[in-house]
Amino acid sequence: MSAALDRDAVNTLRFLSVDQVEAANSGHPGLPLGAAAMAYALFRRHLRFDPARPDWANRDRFILSAGHGSALIYSLLHVVGYELPLDELKRFRQLGSRTPGHPEFGWTPGVEATTGPLGQGAGMAVGMALAERFLRETHPGVFDHRIYALVSDGDLMEGIASEACSLAGTQKLGRLIFLYDANDISLDGPTSHAFTEDVAGRFRAYGWQVLEIADGNDVDAIDRALVKAQAEENRPSILVIRTVIGYGSPKAGTSAAHGSPLGAAATLQTKKDLGWPEEPAFHVPEAVKAIAADARDKGAALSAAWDAAVAKSGSDALQHILAGTLPEGWDSALNALEPKDKEATRDSGKAALNAVAAGVPWLIGGSADLVSSTKTEVSGSPINSPAEPAGRNIWFGVREHGMGAAVNGLALTGLPAFGSTFLVFSDYMRGAIRLSALMKTKSIWVFTHDSVFVGEDGPTHQPIEQVQSLRLIPGLEVHRPADAFETAEAWRCAMTASGPSALILTRQALPTLRDRRETVRAGYAQGAYVLADADGAKAVLAASGSEVSLAMKAAEALTAEGIPVRVVSVPCRERFAAQSAEVHQSVLGSGLPVVTLEAGTTSGWADLAPGRTVSLGLDRFGESAPGDEVYAHLGMTVEAVVGLVKGSL
Amino acid sequence: MSAALDRDAVNTLRFLSVDQVEAANSGHPGLPLGAAAMAYALFRRHLRFDPARPDWANRDRFILSAGHGSALIYSLLHVVGYELPLDELKRFRQLGSRTPGHPEFGWTPGVEATTGPLGQGAGMAVGMALAERFLRETHPGVFDHRIYALVSDGDLMEGIASEACSLAGTQKLGRLIFLYDANDISLDGPTSHAFTEDVAGRFRAYGWQVLEIADGNDVDAIDRALVKAQAEENRPSILVIRTVIGYGSPKAGTSAAHGSPLGAAATLQTKKDLGWPEEPAFHVPEAVKAIAADARDKGAALSAAWDAAVAKSGSDALQHILAGTLPEGWDSALNALEPKDKEATRDSGKAALNAVAAGVPWLIGGSADLVSSTKTEVSGSPINSPAEPAGRNIWFGVREHGMGAAVNGLALTGLPAFGSTFLVFSDYMRGAIRLSALMKTKSIWVFTHDSVFVGEDGPTHQPIEQVQSLRLIPGLEVHRPADAFETAEAWRCAMTASGPSALILTRQALPTLRDRRETVRAGYAQGAYVLADADGAKAVLAASGSEVSLAMKAAEALTAEGIPVRVVSVPCRERFAAQSAEVHQSVLGSGLPVVTLEAGTTSGWADLAPGRTVSLGLDRFGESAPGDEVYAHLGMTVEAVVGLVKGSL
Repeated sequence: MSAALDRDAVNTLRFLSVDQVEAANSGHPGLPLGAAAMAYALFRRHLRFDPARPDWANRDRFILSAGHGSALIYSLLHVVGYELPLDELKRFRQLGSRTPGHPEFGWTPGVEATTGPLGQGAGMAVGMALAERFLRETHPGVFDHRIYALVSDGDLMEGIASEACSLAGTQKLGRLIFLYDANDISLDGPTSHAFTEDVAGRFRAYGWQVLEIADGNDVDAIDRALVKAQAEENRPSILVIRTVIGYGSPKAGTSAAHGSPLGAAATLQTKKDLGWPEEPAFHVPEAVKAIAADARDKGAALSAAWDAAVAKSGSDALQHILAGTLPEGWDSALNALEPKDKEATRDSGKAALNAVAAGVPWLIGGSADLVSSTKTEVSGSPINSPAEPAGRNIWFGVREHGMGAAVNGLALTGLPAFGSTFLVFSDYMRGAIRLSALMKTKSIWVFTHDSVFVGEDGPTHQPIEQVQSLRLIPGLEVHRPADAFETAEAWRCAMTASGPSALILTRQALPTLRDRRETVRAGYAQGAYVLADADGAKAVLAASGSEVSLAMKAAEALTAEGIPVRVVSVPCRERFAAQSAEVHQSVLGSGLPVVTLEAGTTSGWADLAPGRTVSLGLDRFGESAPGDEVYAHLGMTVEAVVGLVKGSL
Repeated sequence: MSAALDRDAVNTLRFLSVDQVEAANSGHPGLPLGAAAMAYALFRRHLRFDPARPDWANRDRFILSAGHGSALIYSLLHVVGYELPLDELKRFRQLGSRTPGHPEFGWTPGVEATTGPLGQGAGMAVGMALAERFLRETHPGVFDHRIYALVSDGDLMEGIASEACSLAGTQKLGRLIFLYDANDISLDGPTSHAFTEDVAGRFRAYGWQVLEIADGNDVDAIDRALVKAQAEENRPSILVIRTVIGYGSPKAGTSAAHGSPLGAAATLQTKKDLGWPEEPAFHVPEAVKAIAADARDKGAALSAAWDAAVAKSGSDALQHILAGTLPEGWDSALNALEPKDKEATRDSGKAALNAVAAGVPWLIGGSADLVSSTKTEVSGSPINSPAEPAGRNIWFGVREHGMGAAVNGLALTGLPAFGSTFLVFSDYMRGAIRLSALMKTKSIWVFTHDSVFVGEDGPTHQPIEQVQSLRLIPGLEVHRPADAFETAEAWRCAMTASGPSALILTRQALPTLRDRRETVRAGYAQGAYVLADADGAKAVLAASGSEVSLAMKAAEALTAEGIPVRVVSVPCRERFAAQSAEVHQSVLGSGLPVVTLEAGTTSGWADLAPGRTVSLGLDRFGESAPGDEVYAHLGMTVEAVVGLVKGSL
């Protein structure tokens, strides 16, 4: 490769990016100008990909964790031959374009993850590296690739990145390589006011190989460092690459280059100073245009060779992983579960998870140091580690947010993945949960200890607002099953849903609805269904999770007082909301008062049956005491339900 | 001090803790057994406090960041003379006791912060150290203390701790000292599966002094290290103290000792092995009992000497800081604000913040690297730094969660404090926001870029569920003001509230309701009020924030069609919910249809006027495009409002 072509290609990336931002009059020119050389070195000399086949499963991954530099990735994808024409670059950040403000997975070919919220890309890359190692071990000769992420100062300040990178060191993820765009500038100004740590020392302490590159425009130096990084199979590597934000522009080296267009005059000046034609905008020299065809040729050869390896492997599991499908009979163990008469749904969850894990041997996940409590262990499989790369139990450590991102990375690689912690700590990982919903990944969030029934641990550990708060995330299905049978159905839904799910499970034992097993199975998937009906019912008790058994007891008490009621189980509000008006009416009746029960905030329940709903719940923080005492103390009693029903008649 | 007394006192702490857990049959004996010696060394040889006066403002702070070890702090507080009798220890984790499962600020004398969610205590300690330095600089001769935190492996795995500790290094917080209970065990088992990083190396990379203590039971070695830590004024210090979880018990060194009672037999065995009387439980030797009186005497002398210094200082500001009150006329600049005709409420927020900052010179805060966008700068005050310790602008870096904890720490020290970022990133810091609500701190969360009007940055940066999600947190007041005047009132409410507030502000300009200035001022504090009425109104338009101007436009259009409507501004749902039924009726009428408008999830609005509410909002993710285009594209239009009103008549 000639130095002239390198220079022209790097400048093409720079100015395609700058021109995108100028055209939109919005965006971030600073990162592309400073980081174009490292992106070029990676994409042209190392990254194995097939631009015509962005879903080729053994491609190397590239994550732009600093998603605000989106113009750079669009420029790159265009230049290296992805289906992203210049016309799309010209519509940067416009409604419906393939070039949105931050990279969006599933929308732009070649974008591996939705990024922008800082640190998430770094964390997803760690999950992808765990997935690669798992797949390489379980499908030898088929999987064998690397995960690269471009990270910024901002990414590395975020706690989620610290969590994920510490884990990556423990896990010795040699296929993980970070390119750190170290420019000492973040949005507000020089990082000296907030971020003076020795990043290299920190990563060495995590157990990473650290490679320092003094000049971020030196394509050859970056190239050599990438070779060293690839040679290190037992440690992740970070290339600390000194760059100048907004390189070449009048705003170079200042935060003014970070997030605002350069402006017409400064754009022209920059082009002039870097020897670039001042017009037309979106200029691509002929020699650079040739890169696309070359990359497509190389990519086609790589992916074709891989097709042969896949054909040779003859693995049925592999076909399902590649297609994102489930094998026949995957749920046979799930259907055969025989729970005890009383079970905590976290225990039911363990049984269901293991039933699914038996049928889907590439289901993988773990816990943020709470597997002993959340019970999300794949029995018989080792703890995932460098020595046991096919282990299906990942110990994420006390790192909820990092776990969330890693689970998303696993799921993006085609492995349905779960992550578990106490429900109250879902607060620590909402950033990652939201991204799973945006990306529609098969991320399964298992949250146990789901109410004040947590008991003695007290208000810091007792969820109040969390269930409803998760329900607010568009595209996330939130399941709060009432017993072991519902828990099995929740897992079935999670495995077959087109996006992420959250399973909300109890610490305490709940009675199993054994005589209603078929009712549960028939009704569950619609999100709410009649669990117990009564002739001449005068009201409906609608409840989720542990409050379904409260509803059943209250129904008995009410019947004894001559007030028959219908009991409706509402395990998944999102699914029920998607049903027709007829289904809504068949479940909730049309004029009856509806009393809802949930040991959490009452907010949101009024939408179940507008205008005829009253709600029993908890709109205050809990108390430290044995769970049943707290529950009763805060008014979650049969008497309270009976009172509400009578009041609503 | 005699070695025998030291030993007996340490064992007293151990067994008071073990006995608490046994009595409750719930709790965490492992940490107290392993960390009793460091706690004793600190409290008896270094910590300056007055047990009879737990709110003495110049006391050293001790934060048990590993809050699950609560039994230890209760044992400590009892032994050193705080008002926490043995009877309370015997009611550990029972309803209404002063010894809840995790330490709760404001409930147990001597507990400086609510902890339990890991990493929060570490972060709050960083905020307290910033507060101490600020107060020491602004009130020389009055403030001069240290902040100690006991942190665990779990704390240091959490990203929030990484964020806060990196910031502490940059800020050279010499008064901050961590005692790291390094026992290589977390809940699920040995940390070798998830946490093998070189913690000492990591903290050195952050710029901390690292002191290693090989034997966590060596009171003298810990003592000497504390002396070294105190001598270092230009770096925070961490004592890496090797301990054995569950020391002395049959479960020592295993995760079995972490979170479950030892059981009667193992308890007796442990007492026997450590030479402790097997009964009675809750035994305190006479010599150890004498510690309380001694600590009270020393404390009384310290705090009395300080009273003299305070009297000498004669500072009016100091009296307000100590009492948590506001000086007369603190809001005079706020009352005099003269906004432009159109202003983004983030700009109105800047004006209001600065008006308040002028009247309350100890208001302090900052941003997670977004001050250029959130506009929360105290004009004329420097960036807080070692060289400018009285600077009121803290650059927290891209560290939302760490910022949240630090803001709570500032507020716990008596400084009303603010922290700002984009609304969508409130997701990154919910753990800290929730704690502010639990502790009722004067933490003011400023969240800008509050809707899809964010525009080009796209769905990762456009809040949908965040406003409602914040409203679900009990005790947090969420304000979404409609213009500059409302924004000023929001700040007034935040400064006078008895707990935390969130201010939700726009990126885009909104029309100023100049001719309704007095209406705003009179009505705002009740949370919702009639902004514009019409004779014979047929419906009510109820809106918050930027949708108030949409409501006003829609009202015009409806009037033109002969449908007069009332417009109600609803800036703070929590405040309105606290009003009487009469107020509700006077604002919303009694039978009229209510159409609510908010550019976010519709969930929760049905509660405003049950049974007669329809809502316009956004129950899906946004799009990348100019803000006004996204807004209209997603149906936030006058036409849509008109249609809903007509449909509801």
